[in-house]
Amino acid sequence: MYTYSYLYDFTKNVFKKMGCGDSDADTIAEVFMAAELRGHASHGMIRIKDYYQLWKAGRINVNPNIKIVHETPSTAVIDGDRAVGMVPANKSMELAIKKAEMAGTGWVATRNSNHFGIAGYYAMKALKHDMIGICLTNANPLVAPTNSISRMMGTNPIAVAIPAKNNPPFVADFATTPIARGKLAVSEKKGELVPYGFVQDKTGKPSNRPDILKEGGSMVTLGGDLEHGSHKGYCLSAIVDIFSAVLGGANFGPFVPPSVAYLPVLDEKVGEGTGHFFGAMRIDAFQPAEEFKAKMDKWIETFRSAKPSEGSERVLIPGDPEREKEERFMKEGISIVPAIREDLLVISRELGIDFE
Amino acid sequence: MYTYSYLYDFTKNVFKKMGCGDSDADTIAEVFMAAELRGHASHGMIRIKDYYQLWKAGRINVNPNIKIVHETPSTAVIDGDRAVGMVPANKSMELAIKKAEMAGTGWVATRNSNHFGIAGYYAMKALKHDMIGICLTNANPLVAPTNSISRMMGTNPIAVAIPAKNNPPFVADFATTPIARGKLAVSEKKGELVPYGFVQDKTGKPSNRPDILKEGGSMVTLGGDLEHGSHKGYCLSAIVDIFSAVLGGANFGPFVPPSVAYLPVLDEKVGEGTGHFFGAMRIDAFQPAEEFKAKMDKWIETFRSAKPSEGSERVLIPGDPEREKEERFMKEGISIVPAIREDLLVISRELGIDFE
Repeated sequence: MYTYSYLYDFTKNVFKKMGCGDSDADTIAEVFMAAELRGHASHGMIRIKDYYQLWKAGRINVNPNIKIVHETPSTAVIDGDRAVGMVPANKSMELAIKKAEMAGTGWVATRNSNHFGIAGYYAMKALKHDMIGICLTNANPLVAPTNSISRMMGTNPIAVAIPAKNNPPFVADFATTPIARGKLAVSEKKGELVPYGFVQDKTGKPSNRPDILKEGGSMVTLGGDLEHGSHKGYCLSAIVDIFSAVLGGANFGPFVPPSVAYLPVLDEKVGEGTGHFFGAMRIDAFQPAEEFKAKMDKWIETFRSAKPSEGSERVLIPGDPEREKEERFMKEGISIVPAIREDLLVISRELGIDFE
Repeated sequence: MYTYSYLYDFTKNVFKKMGCGDSDADTIAEVFMAAELRGHASHGMIRIKDYYQLWKAGRINVNPNIKIVHETPSTAVIDGDRAVGMVPANKSMELAIKKAEMAGTGWVATRNSNHFGIAGYYAMKALKHDMIGICLTNANPLVAPTNSISRMMGTNPIAVAIPAKNNPPFVADFATTPIARGKLAVSEKKGELVPYGFVQDKTGKPSNRPDILKEGGSMVTLGGDLEHGSHKGYCLSAIVDIFSAVLGGANFGPFVPPSVAYLPVLDEKVGEGTGHFFGAMRIDAFQPAEEFKAKMDKWIETFRSAKPSEGSERVLIPGDPEREKEERFMKEGISIVPAIREDLLVISRELGIDFE
């Protein structure tokens, strides 16, 4: 078990040793730790190795010149200059909030970025300003559109954070696929099969093998198959891709650059780096914030008191499971699985940082 | 088979006889016909009877005073004054577009409205202005959150329309449930069972009976069950509900008023009428519109050329099926099923309008 601050300091030191500025390294560590605390370990410490190797391969810029390349009162496009994704993502969300303060809402498309960790972190930044926060990103292509066997899209997540008054906020943060990529990896390591409805083989036949992506298979979109609405998951994932990449000038769909160094840079590009999209909506651009937040309390309490189905304990509000984990992990500490700890030990030795 | 203009004129006349102004009746007829043409017959002529009966019951205002009750440079809240939903919805989308012209983006939450037909119609209004159009609405509660047996949400659709250059636009328009409510009714009439993954019985057990809603059952969210990501469909549906209703002051979740007269007005209300949410984003608030639209061509052509899975003919772009139907129905005419034609004949006699 590690404490929050031990892992935070380690992460910060890794990125400082790679050459990141102090404030950038703080941002990066904060987002890494948010993933661990909220139970999205697939976006936490496990990814330090990916960044480290991308940096060694010269595919990450640790001294980026992040700039606004286009703007209107309520919009902007930011160029991330190939930075560690958390840095331009954080700046972009801050700009969206600033725009919202002036114009009621703010919308920022970000290009030339890299993997930015968990989307929910950025959406939640809006909450303390009495704003709704929105965050989308595209990602490496692993997912096939309905009727297709080609890997055209990432697990393209959507995060929306909405403040309440006496209740914790509503925080949705989810991939537009039935499961996250990381869950396949876990099942594969355990030697287990997965339920049908997550992946398909290279001909498009449903598969229960978590390693089928290594044999030309692909993940499917939310809905699973056409009969159960996979075309709706395809629509969602496509919308996330277009907002995140086409709008700001990043690579879209199958052209999104790999976020791991063992996959080569693609030959063809249609934009710059990976793309994200951020939104902030000031509540009082619609109604007094206190009134809205009181209504959100009523919304949350109404849904929380819905009748559970047989065998279910309770009905959850989006954000409940992550918040409960956050409280527990802050108190009890964060565990890192042995294989990831081994990777971190290697990195700590190579960079000359203490880690145990 | 009926021609577009025959059904348009009939629909317009029905609403004029009910007391709607000429221009409002035009708007209403246009949205009804858009549903028929695009193959969403569940939102077309079948619903004239519902509106007619709501009007007879005094639950619809045909001479509404629709007004802006709050605004900022990029946002507004509109009160629909209990109008036929298409009228305030159309005005709201036009206001979102006007706001976007000035501020880059425009966002309008609408309360005190009624069922507004197909969401895609409004989103598509943005296209000719070189804008992205967005439309959400909540609806009568038929859908249970994950782990629950309570009907808390409507089929809460999401529509997003994005312009391209030489290709037809990208138009996604989908319910946040595996299937639309109308499909259950069709299977029920045919005496057929439905696949598992659409509905559950009153204890929360998966059911294949399309009539299970009459026995305390409910629809499930996109994803179908928790293992396959129904909590993501729940998040989506909840976001649509909060944006459409809480933001503008309409009724949310289980409090959304029925869109049919045979269901009583609810005792408790938490806002005014049904709620919608509209967005318009000027493309050139992010980059020159011509550049963006050329990139959308590339996006569309890339996805259209994805490899079909075995047994599939081709990979579709959102909006393809609806556009193909639109072209065919405009040429070949629109067929109305006998039971609906009977209803329309009754209404035409009662209102003194020609129909055959």
